[in-house]
Amino acid sequence: MTETVPQPTTHVGRSLPRREDAALITGRGTWTDDIAPLGTVHLALVRSPVAHARVTGVDTSAAREHDGVVAVLTGADLAGEFVAGIPTGWPVTEDILVPDHQPLARDEVNHVGDAVAVVVATGAAAARDAAELVVVDYDELPAVVDVEAALEPGAPLVHEQFGTNHCYTWPLAVGDVDAALAEADVVVEGRYVQQRVLASPMEPRAVVVTPDAVGGGFTIHTSTQVPHFVRDILAAICGISDTKLRVVAPDVGGGFGAKLNVYAEEALALVLARRLRRPVKWTETRSEHHLATTHGRGQVQHMTVGATRDGRIVGMKVRLVADMGAYLQLLTPGIAVFGAFTYCGLYDFGAYDFECRGVFTNLTPTDAYRGAGRSEAAYAHERVLDDLARALQMDPAELRLRNLHPPFSEPRTVPSGVQYDSGDYERAMRRALELVGYDDLRAEQTRRRAAGDPVELGIGIGNFTESGGLSPSKVAAGVRLQSGGWEAATVRMTTAGRAEVVTGTSPHGQGHETAWAQIAADSLGIDPADVEVFHSDTMIAPFGRDTYGSRSLAVGGTAVYGAAEKVVAKARLIAAHLLEAAESDLQFVDGVFSVAGTSGPSVTIQEVAGAASLAANLPDGMEPNLTADHHFDPPNFTWPFGTHIAVVEVDTETGRTTIRRFVAVDDCGRIVNPQIVDGQLHGGIAQGIAQALYEHATFDEAGQPTAATLADYAVPAASDLPAFDLDQTVTPSPTNPLGAKGIGESGAIGSSPAVVNAAIDALAARGVTALDMPLTPQRVWRALQGEAPVPTIVS
Amino acid sequence: MTETVPQPTTHVGRSLPRREDAALITGRGTWTDDIAPLGTVHLALVRSPVAHARVTGVDTSAAREHDGVVAVLTGADLAGEFVAGIPTGWPVTEDILVPDHQPLARDEVNHVGDAVAVVVATGAAAARDAAELVVVDYDELPAVVDVEAALEPGAPLVHEQFGTNHCYTWPLAVGDVDAALAEADVVVEGRYVQQRVLASPMEPRAVVVTPDAVGGGFTIHTSTQVPHFVRDILAAICGISDTKLRVVAPDVGGGFGAKLNVYAEEALALVLARRLRRPVKWTETRSEHHLATTHGRGQVQHMTVGATRDGRIVGMKVRLVADMGAYLQLLTPGIAVFGAFTYCGLYDFGAYDFECRGVFTNLTPTDAYRGAGRSEAAYAHERVLDDLARALQMDPAELRLRNLHPPFSEPRTVPSGVQYDSGDYERAMRRALELVGYDDLRAEQTRRRAAGDPVELGIGIGNFTESGGLSPSKVAAGVRLQSGGWEAATVRMTTAGRAEVVTGTSPHGQGHETAWAQIAADSLGIDPADVEVFHSDTMIAPFGRDTYGSRSLAVGGTAVYGAAEKVVAKARLIAAHLLEAAESDLQFVDGVFSVAGTSGPSVTIQEVAGAASLAANLPDGMEPNLTADHHFDPPNFTWPFGTHIAVVEVDTETGRTTIRRFVAVDDCGRIVNPQIVDGQLHGGIAQGIAQALYEHATFDEAGQPTAATLADYAVPAASDLPAFDLDQTVTPSPTNPLGAKGIGESGAIGSSPAVVNAAIDALAARGVTALDMPLTPQRVWRALQGEAPVPTIVS
Repeated sequence: MTETVPQPTTHVGRSLPRREDAALITGRGTWTDDIAPLGTVHLALVRSPVAHARVTGVDTSAAREHDGVVAVLTGADLAGEFVAGIPTGWPVTEDILVPDHQPLARDEVNHVGDAVAVVVATGAAAARDAAELVVVDYDELPAVVDVEAALEPGAPLVHEQFGTNHCYTWPLAVGDVDAALAEADVVVEGRYVQQRVLASPMEPRAVVVTPDAVGGGFTIHTSTQVPHFVRDILAAICGISDTKLRVVAPDVGGGFGAKLNVYAEEALALVLARRLRRPVKWTETRSEHHLATTHGRGQVQHMTVGATRDGRIVGMKVRLVADMGAYLQLLTPGIAVFGAFTYCGLYDFGAYDFECRGVFTNLTPTDAYRGAGRSEAAYAHERVLDDLARALQMDPAELRLRNLHPPFSEPRTVPSGVQYDSGDYERAMRRALELVGYDDLRAEQTRRRAAGDPVELGIGIGNFTESGGLSPSKVAAGVRLQSGGWEAATVRMTTAGRAEVVTGTSPHGQGHETAWAQIAADSLGIDPADVEVFHSDTMIAPFGRDTYGSRSLAVGGTAVYGAAEKVVAKARLIAAHLLEAAESDLQFVDGVFSVAGTSGPSVTIQEVAGAASLAANLPDGMEPNLTADHHFDPPNFTWPFGTHIAVVEVDTETGRTTIRRFVAVDDCGRIVNPQIVDGQLHGGIAQGIAQALYEHATFDEAGQPTAATLADYAVPAASDLPAFDLDQTVTPSPTNPLGAKGIGESGAIGSSPAVVNAAIDALAARGVTALDMPLTPQRVWRALQGEAPVPTIVS
Repeated sequence: MTETVPQPTTHVGRSLPRREDAALITGRGTWTDDIAPLGTVHLALVRSPVAHARVTGVDTSAAREHDGVVAVLTGADLAGEFVAGIPTGWPVTEDILVPDHQPLARDEVNHVGDAVAVVVATGAAAARDAAELVVVDYDELPAVVDVEAALEPGAPLVHEQFGTNHCYTWPLAVGDVDAALAEADVVVEGRYVQQRVLASPMEPRAVVVTPDAVGGGFTIHTSTQVPHFVRDILAAICGISDTKLRVVAPDVGGGFGAKLNVYAEEALALVLARRLRRPVKWTETRSEHHLATTHGRGQVQHMTVGATRDGRIVGMKVRLVADMGAYLQLLTPGIAVFGAFTYCGLYDFGAYDFECRGVFTNLTPTDAYRGAGRSEAAYAHERVLDDLARALQMDPAELRLRNLHPPFSEPRTVPSGVQYDSGDYERAMRRALELVGYDDLRAEQTRRRAAGDPVELGIGIGNFTESGGLSPSKVAAGVRLQSGGWEAATVRMTTAGRAEVVTGTSPHGQGHETAWAQIAADSLGIDPADVEVFHSDTMIAPFGRDTYGSRSLAVGGTAVYGAAEKVVAKARLIAAHLLEAAESDLQFVDGVFSVAGTSGPSVTIQEVAGAASLAANLPDGMEPNLTADHHFDPPNFTWPFGTHIAVVEVDTETGRTTIRRFVAVDDCGRIVNPQIVDGQLHGGIAQGIAQALYEHATFDEAGQPTAATLADYAVPAASDLPAFDLDQTVTPSPTNPLGAKGIGESGAIGSSPAVVNAAIDALAARGVTALDMPLTPQRVWRALQGEAPVPTIVS
């Protein structure tokens, strides 16, 4: 007779339907703007219509007379409410220039949309109407808009007291790149522009602050990715004990990095709720989103790569000029710097030299946007690799394959000096090439070109890795982020034997309620339907570092796993006590403890939970109940990677680029819910394609936005996008027990370079080898007329 | 040079003002009835006007037509909504008879107020109006009202299927009491009646159930002492996962045991919110409070005590008949039984024999009321001691002093077989006698009596102990409550170094927010103002056993203390790491860690909290943040005690009893906040005096309540009560590290016997030696006319 060894059921790895969707797709979500306490007053901000000016007078008298107006207040009026300005959380160097940034500008406005006064009224429309009646005298100053021109001698100064627009320089050098380039057979330089883009979430920002009746506390509902940061930072800005602030992020309709911040309007709503003792609400209009919410990207990238004749890269130099905009928001200075570690991509070579200069302009501040820093890096290295391939007259896939790191399952030091966690780049890349039918496409390209087809076929590759799971430690080269990179979770079981998971992550579309239930259910051996997941309320989930930077699964999911395993460990001790067995003899399969190899008595984890609550028969000294906290502080970033390949057709007569096929082979380590991974990729690829082809937050020379509505700012519709062919390889991360790497940003990283490379691949034969995003038909058509710059081949 | 050894600041022991009071005394509390979600519908119950009947028809048609009515539903209509009836949580014996108890009666009503249908309407008034239109056909049955008559052969049966009204018999015997009594010089018997009383909290009961938009969850705001019990029990009754129920007790305006229950209306609101998908509210009217909220007391007590001629007690026999009412609510069968351990009071003697019979009547169910079980016990043993003193012609104080246990600081086994924790009874009693000026009063009494004063002076003593801090374990004689007696707390520090305390207790007037902050502040070495206390929300405080039975400080406060000490222990490890010192060399005084005996570097606990959050420099393997859970499962009850002395004047011409002086010397172990202790005593003594003099929930022979409004039910006003002279002795409890015993019920325990003994002491010389509560002028006057029974002296 053979023993049947029970096999545990696993829920991780299955596409459980997202439990979040029922509310969202039936219109029953709860958004911040739905929160409407009795007596709520509404804010409207009086925003600067000019990019740079001294404020010489604010006349609020007409606005005060408007029906429904409760108060009209200027920066000076509210000066006493704030004990600090809006801080940056990532001052990247010791000598960085940090301008004072008050929630309301006092003497000077520094970008269009900079707020100078706030109207409080009983209705939102009344507040907006009255805001139009506030008369502000602006003594206009010259504005600086172009990030490179801002560094020229004699450029107008955004912050005159600094005597410069140069905010900081952040360098990183590994090896002697000049020597390496001097010895290279081929050196290619490229200048690429990361245009400013907008997050454009479905739900704009919104905040409602409700004062407690007594005690000096406030509940802050806000549409944010980072309720814990909001709590700590508003406490500091407004001089309120952090224990007096409860921050709740209800359903949040997308963030994309733009809600990874603490904004003036949140601070204003709080101090006005304190001052007026009434609930205060502000909901962003769509045009305010374009003016007053941080922008993404905004960099000029100078790349220099040297290689041997046979395509071995020998060195890379990266010079960035990064547009801060007018102020430093939470992560503004760090975003471009954060890419420093991945400009070397998946490629193994010697010398690496990176330098980023942060520059002030009279524009809306920049900050995180999906892929932040890493998207820019991947774009630049993949662009310059295609330029290098052309210089070498080598197939761009072949060039890449010659330079990939070999497979590695333990951390490996890469040219930027950091350690990637694990990778098998060739497998993912070959899978993508196979899926797309690369060789056949090249043959088709050759055929059509020979036939003089006016619609050119192009194939573009976007190889990338990213640093996911933002981690404070173990980053080489002296870089250490000053923000705990841990995540917290609590797993507890009820008397009836169901589980509750509290996570410090704050999902806004990512499906944590579904995925975290899968993780906990596997550890606990129970049905995921018996697991509830709570989050995004600082009273319910007091410890958390929230959701951004592809961190939630690898850090927060691991914290859930750790807490659940602690619960099982305690349950095992109780089970052994109840079964009068040695702990080491117990097996735990599908939620049932029993003595391995016997058909003797068993006890379910639900029964153990009940016994732990009753506490009538516990091991000596054991505290009642099954509950555990776990903080996971990752030892490294995770490094998801992949190969995206775009197949485009460019109509040379109209300049229109059409994506015929898009293949993405991603590796995000172990997959918890394949459908969620696909969903994250769909959204991310759409955003990457949008940057490549459509979106651009443009300004005129005076700093006036020229795409400040969704009529002018071209967010693509689903019909503008192709179907995506997705596949994944799995290279587990050794940095966490789940082996997970994160997938939140990958789609937005690999896709832009793939699309732009494909378009240039289509047009290079016609002499167009340099194009900046977005590839509007006009821009492409003009390039075909010879108007675009071309990269310089130095030797 | 001498070292100055720093002395820690302590907040425990100081009368910090109650932080709860600002809201309550300025009308800014949040009561359940203030919760008004959009679209709320209101319930009104159709209640039986007769005490016992078969329901032969319910016609809801007229009610359905009433304006605003959403639904009218009978017990039959809702039968499918409930998977279980309302349970009793304390089935005291294996063969106890437990009647089915549905939220709506189906075929039979068993007391006036028993609900047979529910009306749901858009307004509360509409619901009440429509409820009057429901026509119920009652086929009336004979009712049984008198608890002793209910046991007679041929008595009408409340629940015919049982064939008896005798619900259970619960016995406890230690030693041979019959032998002891047979050898006694004097044996005294007494029959005392504990009349039914009402809790009459300022805020009646109320519940609002709000369904989640999706997901099948509900938020239940309810005016309860026991949100955690409500969650677990409603889940069981209504067939909903406990993880889907969030129970919140907002400000609760008093409970006194009557809100230590789970009621039909809570279950009805929940299933109707589920059925209608709308928020559902019910708020009790004052007259409903008299019909449908559990009553307190309701017992007949037969006491037999034997003593030697010199006043040494040799044995005690207790026979109780306890009125269950028509159904068994949460603790109904256990309340009278719970007194079994304290009928022997503070007195040391041999044989003890206790028996309690639970009996059904056609009245509202009884359940906990302040002092539950222990008040009844103290009343009976102090009454019978005065009877014994009269039989022995001994001063009642002297009799008591001869029988007190000697002082003990470690557990001591008492006649009922349990172990009391610690006591110094003579100290408290002598302090009370001294405070009241006992000898002078006796002299005055003698003088006035000799002078023929028609206003008689009486002095009454109420010695008592109580079992506080409800504990499941270590109760001798085979008694074990089947409910975890632990309490849970979490203490955590924020990044900014402030503390948050989460407690599983659920205060409703007790001042936990103030007192728990004092406890945590002392451990953490911080200002109590920097400690926030959260409670009474099962999402924020998931583990808890709530507030009742004088348990909160001794069990819940100890859990807070334990959690805070764990936080300090972790902080100490981090501090040692930061200071590069050995942990054993560190001292921790007033929130500062430093190396003892040096003036070297130091680190505050706030700095440690910041470092623990940043997690940049923690000892190897230590998880970030300062947070700890603690469950405290007490090894025994605590046994608060005291001596209350009432000095009354009884006008023999009118029968009116006036309290001239009331002295209470209590010992509740270590005192955290003296002002809160005084407040608890004030309220408790007022309730005890109210039972002694004023309150009685009366019924006629058909079971009709005859005091069903506050016009008839005589709740005393402040002007009816004397000033109280309070003092405390401190005998720390060895059962918890705080040394605390609890004070929530003491006032309501010692005061009733003191007042009644005083009145009888005043009147005994006129032949009145037996009087039952309340001592209304009519009752006293009649007794003076010879209408009252007198206790029998057997030998």
